[in-house]
Amino acid sequence: MHLSSNLLEAAVKEFSRLPGIGKKTALRLVLHLLKQEEAEVAQFSETIDRMRKEIKFCKTCFNISDLDQCPICSNAGRKKEVICVVENIRDVIAIESTEQYNGLYHVLGGVISPLDGIGPDQLTISALAERIPKENTKEIVFALSPTIQGDTTIYYIRKKLNNPELRFTTIARGIAFGGELEFADEMTLAKSIRNRLPVDSYIQ
Amino acid sequence: MHLSSNLLEAAVKEFSRLPGIGKKTALRLVLHLLKQEEAEVAQFSETIDRMRKEIKFCKTCFNISDLDQCPICSNAGRKKEVICVVENIRDVIAIESTEQYNGLYHVLGGVISPLDGIGPDQLTISALAERIPKENTKEIVFALSPTIQGDTTIYYIRKKLNNPELRFTTIARGIAFGGELEFADEMTLAKSIRNRLPVDSYIQ
Repeated sequence: MHLSSNLLEAAVKEFSRLPGIGKKTALRLVLHLLKQEEAEVAQFSETIDRMRKEIKFCKTCFNISDLDQCPICSNAGRKKEVICVVENIRDVIAIESTEQYNGLYHVLGGVISPLDGIGPDQLTISALAERIPKENTKEIVFALSPTIQGDTTIYYIRKKLNNPELRFTTIARGIAFGGELEFADEMTLAKSIRNRLPVDSYIQ
Repeated sequence: MHLSSNLLEAAVKEFSRLPGIGKKTALRLVLHLLKQEEAEVAQFSETIDRMRKEIKFCKTCFNISDLDQCPICSNAGRKKEVICVVENIRDVIAIESTEQYNGLYHVLGGVISPLDGIGPDQLTISALAERIPKENTKEIVFALSPTIQGDTTIYYIRKKLNNPELRFTTIARGIAFGGELEFADEMTLAKSIRNRLPVDSYIQ
């Protein structure tokens, strides 16, 4: 694809560096922007630039925030004694939108994965260990992906915190809603049988 | 979806205004940019902004260009006596990438479509009429979408130019390569039978 303008070519190149956007989609987006008012496009680019420059990460939980402390940590109505450990900000957004959790978070920034060169020091595990005595934490809820890396991370954190008064839990793993039992993998099915629930607790 | 940062929320909103990008994809793109270096994101937003502000349209054919005249119009090696009339810039790019056409272009900016409020005055038809005597044009190739609006536009332009010395052609319409005959619509099949070609001209 050869374009008749270097400016256009450069813009297409920038867009096609975004994940999941190929050269054709990038061209479509750029031509769309070209049809918009100059002020609108200026606002688009300024918003992106400002977002990257001014956004902060909460100093307590590493969630995204406009201030030093995120709205969840500074919300007096939330249960301070429960911390949900997640991999990234998208997980916080996903859990928040269920409206089923009222505690705090701790964003690890990833999971331990030696093959990808991610050890415990690249994650915010030490910060988590420092938080716990300060905040009088009673429970750590792990909401990590059900992978070997996720399980390793749970194991590591639990060992590192080494606190017998802390309750460690993990989000339930089992057959998803709408999932067909016969198509579930053995591992999931096995875990969901071993961790079966009383029907009373299930129908609430 | 509630986000813990207004800056993030604003950036997601800007991205989700682009065609084909929903809120979830926008969030994915924004979080990707957030992980990039500040300088890279600044370059991204600056490139987009500059592109919108500085890009020009060729004064002759209305193709996108960095200068007043696009590289196609100013290329001495191209056949000046053939003008291919297209709807938009994307069509120029598509035809150019076939490497089968060596004439000039004329970008209409759309097709006549009274239902969408697009009349001949919104298009660059008068500019096309002015070009023809100057450039000693011998042939107009219409490469418009095979729709009622496209056909109306062809009809209108032909009537408006009203020049018996001009040859008017249109790109061939027929069964696409790899297309199954039995699934072709009647209209296309009918046209491709009526406009059948000698096998010699087809196998070249």
